[in-house]
Amino acid sequence: MTRFHWTCESTDGAARAGTLHTAHGPVATPTFMPVGTVGTVKAMTMDAVRSTGAGIVLGNTYHLMLRPGAERVRALGGLHRFMDWPGPILTDSGGFQVMSLGALRRLDQDGVTFRSHIDGSEHRLTPERSTAIQHALDATITMCFDECPALPAPPEAIAASMRLSMRWAARSREAYVQREGYGQFGIVQGGTEPELRAESIKALTDVGFEGYAIGGLAVGEGQALMFATLEATTPLMPQDKPRYLMGVGTPDDLLGGVMRGVDMFDCVMPTRAGRTARAYTERGTLNLRNARHAADARPISPHCDCLACTRHGRAYLHHLFRANEILGPMLLTWHNIAYYQRLMRQMREAIGTGTLQSLADILRAGWEASDWTEDEMPQPAIPLAP
Amino acid sequence: MTRFHWTCESTDGAARAGTLHTAHGPVATPTFMPVGTVGTVKAMTMDAVRSTGAGIVLGNTYHLMLRPGAERVRALGGLHRFMDWPGPILTDSGGFQVMSLGALRRLDQDGVTFRSHIDGSEHRLTPERSTAIQHALDATITMCFDECPALPAPPEAIAASMRLSMRWAARSREAYVQREGYGQFGIVQGGTEPELRAESIKALTDVGFEGYAIGGLAVGEGQALMFATLEATTPLMPQDKPRYLMGVGTPDDLLGGVMRGVDMFDCVMPTRAGRTARAYTERGTLNLRNARHAADARPISPHCDCLACTRHGRAYLHHLFRANEILGPMLLTWHNIAYYQRLMRQMREAIGTGTLQSLADILRAGWEASDWTEDEMPQPAIPLAP
Repeated sequence: MTRFHWTCESTDGAARAGTLHTAHGPVATPTFMPVGTVGTVKAMTMDAVRSTGAGIVLGNTYHLMLRPGAERVRALGGLHRFMDWPGPILTDSGGFQVMSLGALRRLDQDGVTFRSHIDGSEHRLTPERSTAIQHALDATITMCFDECPALPAPPEAIAASMRLSMRWAARSREAYVQREGYGQFGIVQGGTEPELRAESIKALTDVGFEGYAIGGLAVGEGQALMFATLEATTPLMPQDKPRYLMGVGTPDDLLGGVMRGVDMFDCVMPTRAGRTARAYTERGTLNLRNARHAADARPISPHCDCLACTRHGRAYLHHLFRANEILGPMLLTWHNIAYYQRLMRQMREAIGTGTLQSLADILRAGWEASDWTEDEMPQPAIPLAP
Repeated sequence: MTRFHWTCESTDGAARAGTLHTAHGPVATPTFMPVGTVGTVKAMTMDAVRSTGAGIVLGNTYHLMLRPGAERVRALGGLHRFMDWPGPILTDSGGFQVMSLGALRRLDQDGVTFRSHIDGSEHRLTPERSTAIQHALDATITMCFDECPALPAPPEAIAASMRLSMRWAARSREAYVQREGYGQFGIVQGGTEPELRAESIKALTDVGFEGYAIGGLAVGEGQALMFATLEATTPLMPQDKPRYLMGVGTPDDLLGGVMRGVDMFDCVMPTRAGRTARAYTERGTLNLRNARHAADARPISPHCDCLACTRHGRAYLHHLFRANEILGPMLLTWHNIAYYQRLMRQMREAIGTGTLQSLADILRAGWEASDWTEDEMPQPAIPLAP
């Protein structure tokens, strides 16, 4: 059996490249985890997800406890078997979704009572219950149940919320059943206040987890403040444990996060964008519904090996979205996840060769440049039929 | 280059097994053609379509002329390149869709003027225009433009409509540009009147086409009358040319059609059913939204090699449809097309060995039997996680 641990293979400034070893296989870090909220990465088969090079995916406690139910998933062999992903799975604790989706929440020191956004039925999550659900789902990585305060909030409210989350983290750890190759992550809270972040890290490391997440960012504070908070936070986190920045972000956010010592990310952006015709590329984003793509036989990106880019032109994608065909979201989600995975691969390689800053300059210049011209990416030669 | 022709390899009663040779490759017949109305078989990648063994797919003149436009498709290299299907494509002439979808139709002896169901813009289709559009799309098989009368209608109306369609067939042939390996099919009309069908066949064979379709059936007349009409029609059709029964049908319709000498079929049923949780199986249809599948780890069918059946249980499909996840329609459409292709393969093999009647008995008994019991198809052994 594999012990759950992270090995650092190279560093470049604050950035780290390494491998997360788990019961369900290894994951090269830094890594981006596609979001499979209810047991499916929306609009993708798991074969397609695998083909992009993704090493680990997310599931969600809140959604899966409501439908189909954690015990149902357990009886069916766990989330890996259920969704056909034998690799590692990280499950969100449900804390964030209770706050953003659950109705009629009642928070007390013990946990949260809420009504399902699906059918209004009443449910309760506590650190113990969230941990047990994640166990039933067979999550490779279990997250601590935490409280996510609505922002903006006064510093005292942020502090009180963080301290509640730290007590819940200790209870989550108590409830966690250690298994070889599995791990549990504590979640650093404290808003954008460095002292609160430091206090949170101290509380979590006193308990001791297999990894540490940074929560409560990317909630509207802006990229500059997020990066400043990371700079004040990651240096205080254990050097030998993986660091996960929750719910982040754009390609530029990922780059900035990696350069500040983050190893793991998740975000719905690439999948959600794929369903709304927005393509991520080395030249920023494109809206494929835009009329300028209607007759363009070129791929979305000349650098992409996804099904959309190797077999179809932009004109076809444009047509699919205009005609509201399911294949549009299928192909474009695939493309976006492929782009995110390619980006992470480039960053891992650059860290290995000590060239992350130069990669960052190239990436940022690309994102700020406009779409490829026809000189840079010519129209393909298309023989016309007889 | 390949001459467009059909070779008969074996017969079993009226049923025929053979090969359709085309510029875009051979097709084993009898064959079922998945419907790719606007340049996509809904909810499937073309790789998935290929994996089911499908040999030829459909496109639609009416839909493609409105969006993205036939000249656009031509400029992008034709429908094969556009939709990533290098194999044969048959295009519907648009006649049926003008009648069922177009608004404010005005029919005259020359053609039909109608308004688009998408944006209300005015368009006109004539035999010449429909044929030119199908040429621009680069259809392997071009269909004659015909008039499809709304039923029920008095015999005189059916006769007048059929005779108009025969004049249009002659004009479609005039407009058709012969190309090596390509073909054009005439469409036999005449409702359920054997004399009208005979007159129609005479008119079409006097012109001469590479194949002959049977139109105007499966429009509400019922299976018994459809089969009776086929029995009066196919014996009068050329023996050495492929026969295509348009818009048909259920698995039982396909079996009955093959046993009455039909070689080609198309229908939206398996794809449409796949989007509404209905699965075709050897034991009839299942509704995967039904609560009885919620905890069932067994595949939809023990005989199916599609992605849904080889990787997932019914419980997962049930969950996807309950949660309105796109992967539900993706997996179930794949399953249904795989089922239809397996059915056609079984029929081709049975014709080759002269056992079609015995296959028919087995198939019908299965469709009438209820779902597999757990004795017949046991729950898979699922090891529970630690």
